[in-house]
Amino acid sequence: MAKKHILIVPGDGIGQEVTAVGKKVLDKIAARFNHEFTYDEALIGHVAIEATGDPLPAESLEKMKNSDAVLFGAVGHPKYDNDPSAKVRPEQGLLKMRKELGLYANLRPIKLFDELLGASSIKPEILKGADILFFRELTGDIYFGEKGRKNNGDTAYDVAEYSRYEVQRIGRKAFDAARTRRKKLVSVDKANVLESSRLWREEIQKLALEYPDVEVEYQFVDATAMILIKEPTRFDVVVTANLFGDILTDEASQIAGSMGMLASASIGDGTGVYEPIHGSAHDITGKGLANPMASVLSAALLLDISFGLKEESEAIISAIDQVLKKGFRTRDIADKTTDPSMILGTDAIGEEILKLL
Amino acid sequence: MAKKHILIVPGDGIGQEVTAVGKKVLDKIAARFNHEFTYDEALIGHVAIEATGDPLPAESLEKMKNSDAVLFGAVGHPKYDNDPSAKVRPEQGLLKMRKELGLYANLRPIKLFDELLGASSIKPEILKGADILFFRELTGDIYFGEKGRKNNGDTAYDVAEYSRYEVQRIGRKAFDAARTRRKKLVSVDKANVLESSRLWREEIQKLALEYPDVEVEYQFVDATAMILIKEPTRFDVVVTANLFGDILTDEASQIAGSMGMLASASIGDGTGVYEPIHGSAHDITGKGLANPMASVLSAALLLDISFGLKEESEAIISAIDQVLKKGFRTRDIADKTTDPSMILGTDAIGEEILKLL
Ligand SMILES: CC(C)[C@H](C(=O)O)[C@@H](O)C(=O)O
Ligand SMILES: CC(C)[C@H](C(=O)O)[C@@H](O)C(=O)O
Repeated sequence: MAKKHILIVPGDGIGQEVTAVGKKVLDKIAARFNHEFTYDEALIGHVAIEATGDPLPAESLEKMKNSDAVLFGAVGHPKYDNDPSAKVRPEQGLLKMRKELGLYANLRPIKLFDELLGASSIKPEILKGADILFFRELTGDIYFGEKGRKNNGDTAYDVAEYSRYEVQRIGRKAFDAARTRRKKLVSVDKANVLESSRLWREEIQKLALEYPDVEVEYQFVDATAMILIKEPTRFDVVVTANLFGDILTDEASQIAGSMGMLASASIGDGTGVYEPIHGSAHDITGKGLANPMASVLSAALLLDISFGLKEESEAIISAIDQVLKKGFRTRDIADKTTDPSMILGTDAIGEEILKLL
Repeated sequence: MAKKHILIVPGDGIGQEVTAVGKKVLDKIAARFNHEFTYDEALIGHVAIEATGDPLPAESLEKMKNSDAVLFGAVGHPKYDNDPSAKVRPEQGLLKMRKELGLYANLRPIKLFDELLGASSIKPEILKGADILFFRELTGDIYFGEKGRKNNGDTAYDVAEYSRYEVQRIGRKAFDAARTRRKKLVSVDKANVLESSRLWREEIQKLALEYPDVEVEYQFVDATAMILIKEPTRFDVVVTANLFGDILTDEASQIAGSMGMLASASIGDGTGVYEPIHGSAHDITGKGLANPMASVLSAALLLDISFGLKEESEAIISAIDQVLKKGFRTRDIADKTTDPSMILGTDAIGEEILKLL
């Protein structure tokens, strides 16, 4: 029996709706497997700005540090997107959380549920067997370097930066994971142009000597963006910098049929944070249409990675698999062959998952 | 009758093989339409380093400046890719050429030839009707900012930078193009994180006031990477920064079935440069397997944009269309329904194109 304290951080937009389902699933798992999970909630993003003026209030950060794991929703609001001069922004909360918790490794598993082979815009025969684990570096790069304006505000700049240590620690995690999988690692950079990428490649090359059993391929990010669509089965583990990882994993979501199916784990020095890779999606917020499966799969990753509860984690994945096999879909993963009566909203599909747990 | 001087700059790898076909096509056009084209050649990239030690010898640059247009191949060599510490690199020649010629706008039209609807890894029903014109900024961003090492070589950095003026001039070109097309512009940035993106968005917002007839959508680059695959027909004209453009256009090549079909035009203050978006592809260099159609289509763009020869340009595109309709393919655009005897090499498919001109 595990006794754990889980912090729910729904954030903005559909974050609220989907984490509510994720939490119910955690609750059901606790009951079935006889664990004791306690919960608390904390604010981040736009809702935190509205309530306190701060996208990551000190109280939220404190709660994160004192919990065993965080189930996270999303941050963002169109209000700020359309106002490039806004000084306080929801995303600052997310980035500060990543930095303060030392969440340097963002794991994004891209795997297609069999039933969704037809839901992708990519041909089924190209997708079949695709199974990729991304390691996106999450606390460095152009996200965290110095940024500002100069020349009387006429020029804006952002500094991309990597230290050897930062590359080594994420690189090591990726090599270790490759060892437990198909032993293939693709390291993605833009070493033909960027100095930070050249340092990245140097460090991965050094690590490669320690992992002679792992086959390493070096790709330029533009090539990867292409090959992901052309030949997704070529990849096993992929390791890359923060910005490239942001772009490539969103792209790769199409391999899994929909962003609504993809979970991620952010891990590092302390508390792990688990979140869907989709965003706040204000266009569908409050309509009960959001696909909660990415949040439910985030809960599964949380159980597996932070609590070491493998069986519990697999029970969740298998419940989702069965719900899909029964023909239930949310709007984003439905296609023209889907019986409209099988297209469910956020809570209804959540109930179907809970029934199977 | 036009009298023009064209510089052929094959560069590295398959650049040599494909520009040879592009030049033959230009020659044939001159004969048929009664123009007088004279030619010269110049070195760049790895071949230039081997011959002179310099990836862009002064003589090459001089020739570029003194010609009416440049037909370009590719640069790059695995030797440097695997040696992150190399000080002199082929790509430096390409970047210096772009900067010295003031080639700030890189146009990448993504259009699928009907016959290739099946050749893509994306489903035909998703692709049908896709027709995108990318404007990639080409002389700014993280490509040209300060870069280097610090902390005793332990940290590497690259500065991304944009001035208002740089955004305005590429933005204006994109808005102007949208006006002649479906009047839709997507501007891609990462304004929720990057200061240079926020300045980018500010300037595009200002320009939008001058183009009330063009509908503008702002997307974050991660979302664009996803939507390009999910719903490519949503795009008309896309404008974006140098690095994002590099990644997104390579990805978008899959919409056109293959990188081997995509041409680009780099234009700005002086001589225009026309080149395939594919690279030097050393794995197939010298084997006569490369698809020369991107180079031939680059020649078509050259005639249209630099010389204003629309009819001549369309004659080339129609010749390629007919070659495809006859069933001829290169390896990269063949699929399992292709009769193996119809899969031709570089020169052979070049001959088929020439026959139709
Ligand atoms: C919201 C945004 C700042 C964030 C990022 O770019 O990291 C998001 O896209 C993500 O991938 O988690
Ligand atoms: C070769 C490389 C430097 C170049 C770039 O990144 O601009 C290439 O990928 C391109 O797109 O022309």
